[in-house]
Amino acid sequence: MSSVTVFAPSTVSNVACGFDILGFALDGEGDRITASLRDKPGVSIVDIRGDDGLLPREIHLNTAGLAVQTLLEGTAENRRGIDLEIEKGTPPASGLGSSAASSVAAVLAASELLGLGLTNEQLLPASLEGERIASGGVLHGDNVAPCLYGGFVLVRDLDPPDIVSIPVPDDLYCAILRPHVEIKTSESRVLLGGSLSLSTAVRQWGNVAGLISGLHTGDLDLISRSLEDVVAEPVRGHQVPAFHEIKEAALGAGALGCSLSGSGPSIFAICHGRAPAEATVEAMKAALDHASGLASNQIVSVVGGAGAHLVAD
Amino acid sequence: MSSVTVFAPSTVSNVACGFDILGFALDGEGDRITASLRDKPGVSIVDIRGDDGLLPREIHLNTAGLAVQTLLEGTAENRRGIDLEIEKGTPPASGLGSSAASSVAAVLAASELLGLGLTNEQLLPASLEGERIASGGVLHGDNVAPCLYGGFVLVRDLDPPDIVSIPVPDDLYCAILRPHVEIKTSESRVLLGGSLSLSTAVRQWGNVAGLISGLHTGDLDLISRSLEDVVAEPVRGHQVPAFHEIKEAALGAGALGCSLSGSGPSIFAICHGRAPAEATVEAMKAALDHASGLASNQIVSVVGGAGAHLVAD
Repeated sequence: MSSVTVFAPSTVSNVACGFDILGFALDGEGDRITASLRDKPGVSIVDIRGDDGLLPREIHLNTAGLAVQTLLEGTAENRRGIDLEIEKGTPPASGLGSSAASSVAAVLAASELLGLGLTNEQLLPASLEGERIASGGVLHGDNVAPCLYGGFVLVRDLDPPDIVSIPVPDDLYCAILRPHVEIKTSESRVLLGGSLSLSTAVRQWGNVAGLISGLHTGDLDLISRSLEDVVAEPVRGHQVPAFHEIKEAALGAGALGCSLSGSGPSIFAICHGRAPAEATVEAMKAALDHASGLASNQIVSVVGGAGAHLVAD
Repeated sequence: MSSVTVFAPSTVSNVACGFDILGFALDGEGDRITASLRDKPGVSIVDIRGDDGLLPREIHLNTAGLAVQTLLEGTAENRRGIDLEIEKGTPPASGLGSSAASSVAAVLAASELLGLGLTNEQLLPASLEGERIASGGVLHGDNVAPCLYGGFVLVRDLDPPDIVSIPVPDDLYCAILRPHVEIKTSESRVLLGGSLSLSTAVRQWGNVAGLISGLHTGDLDLISRSLEDVVAEPVRGHQVPAFHEIKEAALGAGALGCSLSGSGPSIFAICHGRAPAEATVEAMKAALDHASGLASNQIVSVVGGAGAHLVAD
C-alpha cells in the first residue's frame, strides 16, 4: 500500500462533571488524514486544508506530525518516510478535540500504511504526545481516547493507560453550538488554577459517580441531575459569549444537561432523541443570535459515535 | 404498640475513592434501639449498653436523642414522649458509622412507634441531623444513607437528598479489622485541610468513575484498580497503628483493595468470596499483632447488607 486515509472523529471532553477523565466521539464530524510513503526518511506535512492557514506546518509544532514522529521513533520503522495530507473537519481551538483528531488520525494512518497493525492501546501513547503540545504540555486523554476508541470513555489513568468504555442509553443525542470565537486549551487551563476546595471536589465526584451510574442503568433523570460542572464551567463559562443564555435556552428546550465542550467555545447539550436535539440546537443558536452578532455552526450527533477508522481514499 | 425495636447496621463509608459520597451496609453488625411511649412529652435515654460508658446521655449531645427530637419537631407528634434504650453493636469512634447506626435506628424506631409510616427519604433528614454532632457539624450522608437504605449507595447530593443504589457483583465480601484505638471523625476531618490540588482531585474522580462502572459490570479488575484513595488515606493512614503493614497484608492475601473505613481506625478490604475474605482478615490481624500489642476485632460481611429494619423485641 502506498497510501491510506483515516477518519478520526471530533470529540466532546469533560462532559460537564468529568474534567480530564470523560469524553465521547461524535458521528460524522472529524478530521481526515492521508499518509503516503515517500523516498526519504522523516515526516513531512505536504498539505493542510480547512484550517484557514492557522496550523503550523513544522513537524515538531504540528500535532499530527509530532504524533507520527513519536510513533516512528518507538518502532523499527524510524528510517521510513511519511507524507501527511490533513483535511481538518474539526476546527482548531473549537473545544471539539481538534488536535486529538489530527493526532489520532495521523498515528492510525501511519500504523496502517506501514502495516504495523497496532492496537488502540499501542496507538495511544504517540497520539497523546501529539496532542500534548496543544494543551500547554499537560497530558490528558479525554479527547484522544474517545477519538481512538469511539463511544463514551472514561480515562481512569494514563500511566499506564486505563481506558474504560461506558455504555450509553439508546437515543442519547447531543446538540452542539460552536460560536465562531477561539479559545486555546493551554490558556484556558491556566484560568482554573492549581487547586480547589474539598467541598467543590466532593460535589464534582458525586456528580461523576451519578453520571456513570445513570449511563449504566439508563436513568435519564439521574444523568440530568449529574450533568453539573462546579470546577471548570464557573471559570470558563465567562470566556464564551452568551454562554449562560445559550445554556438556559438548551435546558428550556428540554435538554438533560448543557455545558462547555472541553474548554469551549463549543457548547454541548445532551438530549433524549434526535428530534429534541435538533430543537435544542436551534434554541441555542437563537439565544446566541439574540445576544450577539457572532456566527456559529450547529451539530447534532449521537452520544458516542465510531472511533478512528480507515476510509477509502 | 407501646414499644418497637429496630436494628440498624454498621457501615463502611468513603470506600477508598468515594470520600463523603460512597458507603455500604454490613451484615449482622450494628445497633439495636428500642423506643417506648412514655407519659410525658420529650425524648429520654433510659439506657445505653455496650458503649463502656462513653456516650453522653443528654438528648442534645446524643445522636439518637437529637435525631428523634428533630423528627418529632418536624411532625405533629411533638407533644408525644419517647424513651430510648440503646444497645451499641457498633463501637463509638471505630470508623464503622457508630453515630449513624444509632441515629437511624432511633429515628426509624420512633417513626414506627408513632405509626408515622415514613419512607427512607422522609427519615433521612432527622437521621442526618442526629449524626451531624458526631462529625463536628459537617453534614455528610455516606454512613447514614447506606445504614438506612442498605446495600451500596451513592450520596450524590444532600440538598435535596439524592441517594442512588449501586449494584454489587455477587460474592463481593469485605474483611474488616478494628484495632482498639479511637479516632474521632471531627478531629480527623481537620487533618484533611480545606483544599486539594486539581491533579489529586482528577485522580480521585477518575477512580470514583472506575469503581462505579466496575460495580455495575462486575469487572473485578477495574474495581481493584479503582480502590485507591489519594485524598484522605495519605493523611489519615498515619493515625492508625501499622496501617500500611495491615494494608500490605490484605493485598498480599489477595484482597481487591484495602483502605480506611471512614476516618478509621477500622480498616476494610474488599474480597471476591467469603473464604478469601476470611483469609484476608486473618492476615490483617497477624500484621497488626506482629507490629503492635493492640487488641482488635475482625468482621467478615457481604458488601451491602440489609438496611435498618424492625426486629422482634
